[in-house]
Amino acid sequence: MSNTFGHIFRLSSFGESHGAAVGGVIDGYPAGLHIDLDFIQAQLDRRRPGSTAMGTNRKEADRVEILSGIFEGKSTGAPIAFLVRNSNQHSQDYDSLRNTFRPSHADYTYYSKYGIRDHRGGGRSSARESIARVVAGAFAQLALRELGISIEVFTTRIGDIAIDKDCIFDSQVAQGNELHCPDPAKAADMQALILRMKEEQDSVGGLVHCIVKGVPAGWGEPHALKLQSLLAAAMLSIPACKGFEYGSGFDISLHGSQANDAFFMENGKVRTRTNHSGGIQGGISNGEDIYFNLAFKPIASISREQESVNLQGENCQLLIKGRHDPCVLPRVLPVVEAMTAITLLDAYLLSKTSHL
Amino acid sequence: MSNTFGHIFRLSSFGESHGAAVGGVIDGYPAGLHIDLDFIQAQLDRRRPGSTAMGTNRKEADRVEILSGIFEGKSTGAPIAFLVRNSNQHSQDYDSLRNTFRPSHADYTYYSKYGIRDHRGGGRSSARESIARVVAGAFAQLALRELGISIEVFTTRIGDIAIDKDCIFDSQVAQGNELHCPDPAKAADMQALILRMKEEQDSVGGLVHCIVKGVPAGWGEPHALKLQSLLAAAMLSIPACKGFEYGSGFDISLHGSQANDAFFMENGKVRTRTNHSGGIQGGISNGEDIYFNLAFKPIASISREQESVNLQGENCQLLIKGRHDPCVLPRVLPVVEAMTAITLLDAYLLSKTSHL
Amino acid sequence: MSNTFGHIFRLSSFGESHGAAVGGVIDGYPAGLHIDLDFIQAQLDRRRPGSTAMGTNRKEADRVEILSGIFEGKSTGAPIAFLVRNSNQHSQDYDSLRNTFRPSHADYTYYSKYGIRDHRGGGRSSARESIARVVAGAFAQLALRELGISIEVFTTRIGDIAIDKDCIFDSQVAQGNELHCPDPAKAADMQALILRMKEEQDSVGGLVHCIVKGVPAGWGEPHALKLQSLLAAAMLSIPACKGFEYGSGFDISLHGSQANDAFFMENGKVRTRTNHSGGIQGGISNGEDIYFNLAFKPIASISREQESVNLQGENCQLLIKGRHDPCVLPRVLPVVEAMTAITLLDAYLLSKTSHL
Amino acid sequence: MSNTFGHIFRLSSFGESHGAAVGGVIDGYPAGLHIDLDFIQAQLDRRRPGSTAMGTNRKEADRVEILSGIFEGKSTGAPIAFLVRNSNQHSQDYDSLRNTFRPSHADYTYYSKYGIRDHRGGGRSSARESIARVVAGAFAQLALRELGISIEVFTTRIGDIAIDKDCIFDSQVAQGNELHCPDPAKAADMQALILRMKEEQDSVGGLVHCIVKGVPAGWGEPHALKLQSLLAAAMLSIPACKGFEYGSGFDISLHGSQANDAFFMENGKVRTRTNHSGGIQGGISNGEDIYFNLAFKPIASISREQESVNLQGENCQLLIKGRHDPCVLPRVLPVVEAMTAITLLDAYLLSKTSHL
Repeated sequence: MSNTFGHIFRLSSFGESHGAAVGGVIDGYPAGLHIDLDFIQAQLDRRRPGSTAMGTNRKEADRVEILSGIFEGKSTGAPIAFLVRNSNQHSQDYDSLRNTFRPSHADYTYYSKYGIRDHRGGGRSSARESIARVVAGAFAQLALRELGISIEVFTTRIGDIAIDKDCIFDSQVAQGNELHCPDPAKAADMQALILRMKEEQDSVGGLVHCIVKGVPAGWGEPHALKLQSLLAAAMLSIPACKGFEYGSGFDISLHGSQANDAFFMENGKVRTRTNHSGGIQGGISNGEDIYFNLAFKPIASISREQESVNLQGENCQLLIKGRHDPCVLPRVLPVVEAMTAITLLDAYLLSKTSHL
Repeated sequence: MSNTFGHIFRLSSFGESHGAAVGGVIDGYPAGLHIDLDFIQAQLDRRRPGSTAMGTNRKEADRVEILSGIFEGKSTGAPIAFLVRNSNQHSQDYDSLRNTFRPSHADYTYYSKYGIRDHRGGGRSSARESIARVVAGAFAQLALRELGISIEVFTTRIGDIAIDKDCIFDSQVAQGNELHCPDPAKAADMQALILRMKEEQDSVGGLVHCIVKGVPAGWGEPHALKLQSLLAAAMLSIPACKGFEYGSGFDISLHGSQANDAFFMENGKVRTRTNHSGGIQGGISNGEDIYFNLAFKPIASISREQESVNLQGENCQLLIKGRHDPCVLPRVLPVVEAMTAITLLDAYLLSKTSHL
Repeated sequence: MSNTFGHIFRLSSFGESHGAAVGGVIDGYPAGLHIDLDFIQAQLDRRRPGSTAMGTNRKEADRVEILSGIFEGKSTGAPIAFLVRNSNQHSQDYDSLRNTFRPSHADYTYYSKYGIRDHRGGGRSSARESIARVVAGAFAQLALRELGISIEVFTTRIGDIAIDKDCIFDSQVAQGNELHCPDPAKAADMQALILRMKEEQDSVGGLVHCIVKGVPAGWGEPHALKLQSLLAAAMLSIPACKGFEYGSGFDISLHGSQANDAFFMENGKVRTRTNHSGGIQGGISNGEDIYFNLAFKPIASISREQESVNLQGENCQLLIKGRHDPCVLPRVLPVVEAMTAITLLDAYLLSKTSHL
Repeated sequence: MSNTFGHIFRLSSFGESHGAAVGGVIDGYPAGLHIDLDFIQAQLDRRRPGSTAMGTNRKEADRVEILSGIFEGKSTGAPIAFLVRNSNQHSQDYDSLRNTFRPSHADYTYYSKYGIRDHRGGGRSSARESIARVVAGAFAQLALRELGISIEVFTTRIGDIAIDKDCIFDSQVAQGNELHCPDPAKAADMQALILRMKEEQDSVGGLVHCIVKGVPAGWGEPHALKLQSLLAAAMLSIPACKGFEYGSGFDISLHGSQANDAFFMENGKVRTRTNHSGGIQGGISNGEDIYFNLAFKPIASISREQESVNLQGENCQLLIKGRHDPCVLPRVLPVVEAMTAITLLDAYLLSKTSHL
């Protein structure tokens, strides 16, 4: 069950970075929806290596092939299987890893757990697995669109360069730069930092802010399947994600009398004056914007020499070849968007069962 | 499924704060374990209202009754059902709420979702549901103990009073104060702040640090059931929890060359020089200490007059009676400990299935 | 997960026959339904020991206590916990079993699996666990009633006494006897056979026929959760059930040209001329009556001396004391009804998610 | 979730008969097992159309392609994705079905449920979906073999030709005919009947007997996941399966004193004198052979004119073209074998978690 996300809307993903293909099977997708395949491919293109100067020079075509579940342009209710063939593999780049564990990677833990060393590009733990997330997320977004829901993801910090606290999250401004950062000047600094890291064979982390508009009150289940639990689990499953906070999150500077979100009526609708709750109360959406922040660590794959151990249990030095991103941003943004969509569509479908 | 935690070791909980009882059914608990009922009651006593001057004056006996699954002192493999009867209920305290939603509570969202207003003390969303978590967590801890695993939970901040960055997490020092804070001087300040909040009919939030020692490499499943995803989902399901970070978390000040945890051999065991990974790599434990931080918002129930709306969709003023804690700490500490234990025992049992 | 039935509407049950109580937690019950507690108790009364001369002389009060999930007479959407205290326990009757396995019982297999011998009345494998099924089934029936669905269960055979093939399943006729057999003359013979078995300290098996009316087309999921799979799994989980067939079942005497159910229109509705499909095609209901047959073996607990082995791995003779039914019918009828209701309500709730 | 079998060892399948491909994703397969790809292809060849004179004349190559989860000949613990491309599609054969529902098929129920008519060869409900079952079953069998378990499937009846009650299930005899029938003379009669049906454009049903040897005591979970429930659900999910019975099943002619399986010791092992229990007691294997019977209805696709209705809700006549088997046997035998293996490997892995 470890490779399946979701309860009603479910993604079972598969594939290693240097195997034949990566992909997934989507189950529980609502029947009768028009499927815009161009949108799905476009979402996938956003996470493609080589799409930005800030990333790796690897070029991958990454064309998605749909194998089932769609007939005459519509979802049929049957599972939707899809795959993306792997290509442009420089497996020999990874030969030096056959015998050695990369620091802060999943190499050692996979080997401990399974007793198998698939050294080619991280195998299953490669960021390439996010292809399945992005495709499934695009399907989810097609459904959420019909419900009037939009998801937007912004870069708010790279290394020690952060946007100001009162910066406004303006989509149009953000679309002006590849990091989808709402402050253009800061965006330029962030990009310069990432390029410097690339040059220095180092890497840098970043923070991401996600806003969801249009979710009505009533999504999310109490207790074990609270909306924030579902979102946190989805986000922390993204490689390199180290933290999740929603609403006021780790900022506990306010007292209750200041932090409580007062209710008031607006045009016949219950609203809140502030939104420290981040759109979720008691695990259930309250109709306000849902928002959360994520922390991404610096990518572990750097080309500097590092201290490590080998399969024989000896200390050794490691020099990783291969072509790596110096920062998980901006390519992780569509992955965050996708996992948000996957989580929300599942929450919506679950919410349909609370009444006869 | 929304009230069930876990995959193999599972807790299905039930109960409203002013109903007949709260409790749960534990399924998948390993057979043949000696059950120390005193330990279970002792854990429950730690979360009991009235156990500290910092909390509410409500007194609740909270004696756990085990209904099944234990025979001659040992777990039988059958489900373990337990309950705690509710008593000392001042339901009339809540009469003013029959018609009004408390700000930053689950009142409005439950009503939106279910169309029912159970106004008595928060109903299902009451912190009293954590009784089931603590009892199930105590069972899990009995099993984890046999595997040599210990869990410790510390208060690291209340409002704007925080321990120093380099403060050492010394259990014995922490046991000297009710907040289990590793800095005794700060602990005193924190307690004073909480008492001041109580006096001012206000509330305050806090941060919690949890350390797990003794988990071997190999727990946690890749992809959808990564150990950090399971922990985050469990923690964010605790009422008032707003954020989760593990290892370096939201602190992204270091570059990859500094943040990577170099491997080395120590007494025939693979170790890491640093532990920015927080004991988890690629979703799987690596044998180092697992640690994470949690943010808890100020408790929403305060006795000051607040702006709100009523069931008729009118703006109104609300004055909450009842007896409330001014801070979710220190009573949330055993709940964090419990949810950690529940998550880890489940992860352990799952990990047993990765080989024939 | 082994003690939880269902996907959306879920029953997690607990309890041993000679423990403190048996009961369960229902999750996923639709909110806002009026709960007729008298109906629930009445259903429970139908399976009570001592309710018929054909059964054991044990008398059990079996009053159900609801602990949560209902407020002011309505379901709230929160889990519904319930329990029935055990009483009238003659645990000493079972002392002879402490050391010996009863033939064709679960004694040896539980001991093999768990390494624990809970010898008191079968422990968890006791038919007393069906209390939880009947209570949860009654809740499900309250919901199904609102959807216009009725479930009826008939005895069609006891030992070698069977109703005729062309016997009509007339409810009113069946209500005239405790076996709910549609042929009154055969019913009398069946009862006489059961009473003779009781006298001879022997037991006898029987067949059950269940008809569900009112299920619209579209319930049941294709592939892994086909309606017949869900029903079969539910029925075969009932102690002593050895076989399940739906529609034409094991009768394969007809060729395809005779067995196919021709479609035709009736009052604007798609109907079938015959119903060899038993109301299910491709795993999904087609709007016709759903019907299936079940086989129940003779109860394994008989008071004659039997050959067995003991915990020390020695051959031995066993004489079971205690008060046992000579036939699982008629008391299993409400259990079949309950498991049918549990399965159907779950299937209905799942079916709500196939569209946006 | 409707297209996923299993709890720990899981198969998520996909594909329509006239789509691009059918296949599946296997999750939870134990790591480190040597994968014999020739065995997997050989199992698949057994269910291939055109493999027997008794079946359709359709020829399909059905080569399985493995996309992930295997490295250097061994399972890695990662999901194993596989697919079989569809070919030799005569979609135009199905044009007459675009507008009409085939009697006793899933056409009408799928349309009722999803509002979509994928008329090409049954779409998702096609028997071609069993390819995924057979491939996953072959993987399961590779694992079960290492545990010393064997599964054998026999034809015991076709139409009104049945083997004698006391016929011995001798593998070598059965291997002498395509129906794997233990009585060679009856096998010839059965084959003649099937060929006659083919000629008459009719179809016929059959019964199947499955025996599993080598399962130790302790597999299967009590209550909701009893071994017989898991097996029944798996078997009844196979297209055309109408009934399941294990052990004595629907034969209730014996009284308890005759039907109980007396225990005795043999070479230090607990055995039973008879095996009316079919190797399962209280839902858990007892170490004896597990055996069960299945009923398969006559295939619904026949080329005679039939009465039906169309999408416009009008009565009409239907003449199905296309190339169909006159009997689901013998090609269903490897599917039964596969579903048995899938169920048992899952039960084994679950059973590993009952102890610390």
